[in-house]
Amino acid sequence: MVTEENKHSYELIIIGGGPAGLSAGIYAARGRIDTLLIEKLAMGGQITGAEKVENYPGFPDGVSGFDLTELMQRQASLWGLKTHTADVTGLAVDSNTRIVKTSDGDFLCHAVIVASGSARSKLGVPGEERLLGRGVSYCATCDGAFFQDEAVAVVGGGNAAVSEALALTRYARSVVLVHRRNELRATKVVQERLFSEPKVHVIWDTVVDEILGNDKVEKLRLRNAKTGEGSSVNVAGIFVATGLVPATEFATALLDMDQQGHIITNEVMETKVPGIFAAGDVRHDSAKQCVTAAGDGATAALRAERYLTTEVTR
Amino acid sequence: MVTEENKHSYELIIIGGGPAGLSAGIYAARGRIDTLLIEKLAMGGQITGAEKVENYPGFPDGVSGFDLTELMQRQASLWGLKTHTADVTGLAVDSNTRIVKTSDGDFLCHAVIVASGSARSKLGVPGEERLLGRGVSYCATCDGAFFQDEAVAVVGGGNAAVSEALALTRYARSVVLVHRRNELRATKVVQERLFSEPKVHVIWDTVVDEILGNDKVEKLRLRNAKTGEGSSVNVAGIFVATGLVPATEFATALLDMDQQGHIITNEVMETKVPGIFAAGDVRHDSAKQCVTAAGDGATAALRAERYLTTEVTR
Repeated sequence: MVTEENKHSYELIIIGGGPAGLSAGIYAARGRIDTLLIEKLAMGGQITGAEKVENYPGFPDGVSGFDLTELMQRQASLWGLKTHTADVTGLAVDSNTRIVKTSDGDFLCHAVIVASGSARSKLGVPGEERLLGRGVSYCATCDGAFFQDEAVAVVGGGNAAVSEALALTRYARSVVLVHRRNELRATKVVQERLFSEPKVHVIWDTVVDEILGNDKVEKLRLRNAKTGEGSSVNVAGIFVATGLVPATEFATALLDMDQQGHIITNEVMETKVPGIFAAGDVRHDSAKQCVTAAGDGATAALRAERYLTTEVTR
Repeated sequence: MVTEENKHSYELIIIGGGPAGLSAGIYAARGRIDTLLIEKLAMGGQITGAEKVENYPGFPDGVSGFDLTELMQRQASLWGLKTHTADVTGLAVDSNTRIVKTSDGDFLCHAVIVASGSARSKLGVPGEERLLGRGVSYCATCDGAFFQDEAVAVVGGGNAAVSEALALTRYARSVVLVHRRNELRATKVVQERLFSEPKVHVIWDTVVDEILGNDKVEKLRLRNAKTGEGSSVNVAGIFVATGLVPATEFATALLDMDQQGHIITNEVMETKVPGIFAAGDVRHDSAKQCVTAAGDGATAALRAERYLTTEVTR
């Protein structure tokens, strides 16, 4: 459906306003490509949840994910990037036209960069849906302050889980990290900090089977993954940080994906469909880092520019 | 040759201290990998020559290449990255050991990230070698100030050439941009600035055949690439910005390369030799941007970490 508002055909549409999308936006706008960036909610993606990003090159003292997003957004905006808030629901191809279907109708363009990022995986256990926002959270930076002097749990073993556990020590009385394996995947320096933090206790080889509580989280039912032995822990909050799922449902029909739903690209961000590129966390084998996403975005924008110049008959 | 100084075997050696190498260094040092970064001269690579980097995401007001390098170097150093100054001359493999041959002897390690970047191509015309440093330059940021109120030429048509021409207008009386084609490859916004700058005159479809002058540059002998017609222009300086050549001679015997000498990798920076990765400008199909190099470096370091953990018997 082409409405009065969106009958304009853009040269390029970028789906997603995290580091990959914003970096692509900076490059495309600076390249004077007529570009629209479509973001569902607020700009920034997963990185906005990071209290302190220590490994984005150029910020020796670290920078909060929120501030880094704000800087990138301002940079894109200074170069003239246009943005629109809508939920992308589909992607289609009609000859040289690419159609981005959204909650606000169809947007037309010649090239698309999919940079829709990822969302936290759910545990998929009883109580998780019911107690969402009542003790169940996917973002310590967002919700940590609600748990002043309470006992809380974090589930997971990667960088996100360990960082959330550490962030929570500033509010919570105690933090248990529940991890299904007997070693962490997190970066060494982050692990060292965790192990030296007296408020944190790690429960190894253990999974959460159920989240219990009447109108708010009260207890977790646990199970040892090796022995099968059951146990429980009393907490007021549980932060799920077990992994990320790519937000690519809208592109399933059109693009090649791996089993988890990551988009397959070559090393210059091209998908199998000409004029459609993917960048950042949505890509298969992405390192899922802020700087790798930003690098992907730049590469995708430069390739889109080349595609628009050489392949599209205008 | 293993000397007293370098008989220590590192887990990882990074070759090159530009954005790719420094980003890899930040990630590796933060991952507590025993890492040495070897750089030939000063840190920073090609980017240090950039007066203002406007497209590195996170710096809306731009940042000089020198300052950005300094920030990255400080960040790597805060995480404990060790560095050494030497010229890398060769790369070899002996079972699980990787040998980095340098002007200071051999350094041993288990994994290598080649991030040695690129150098400016030469024109290869008479007078270029003879008048080097006497009017012939490859870096306007470095040498521009020597040409106060003089007439200078820049050769090339990409971002580097146009940026150098613009930078030179602050010193020179006039700048001719000599370009072999009839359109520029530079980013649109950079082209716009060039065309609105009254001090700059573009000579299209033209190549430099000879650089003339006794003890310093006085004149360029030019030729129209289409008609063959000869001409000349009087200048006191010529800045060559026709392209980049990868600094990969030391790895030719070991790694697959394209015709220009860029190293072939897959999308996670692996070369054909296990434990040897490549990142940044040296890679085939690299976008040759600061942020893409930094992204490459992060990916390479994380892959090297995985390789060291899973593949190397220690």
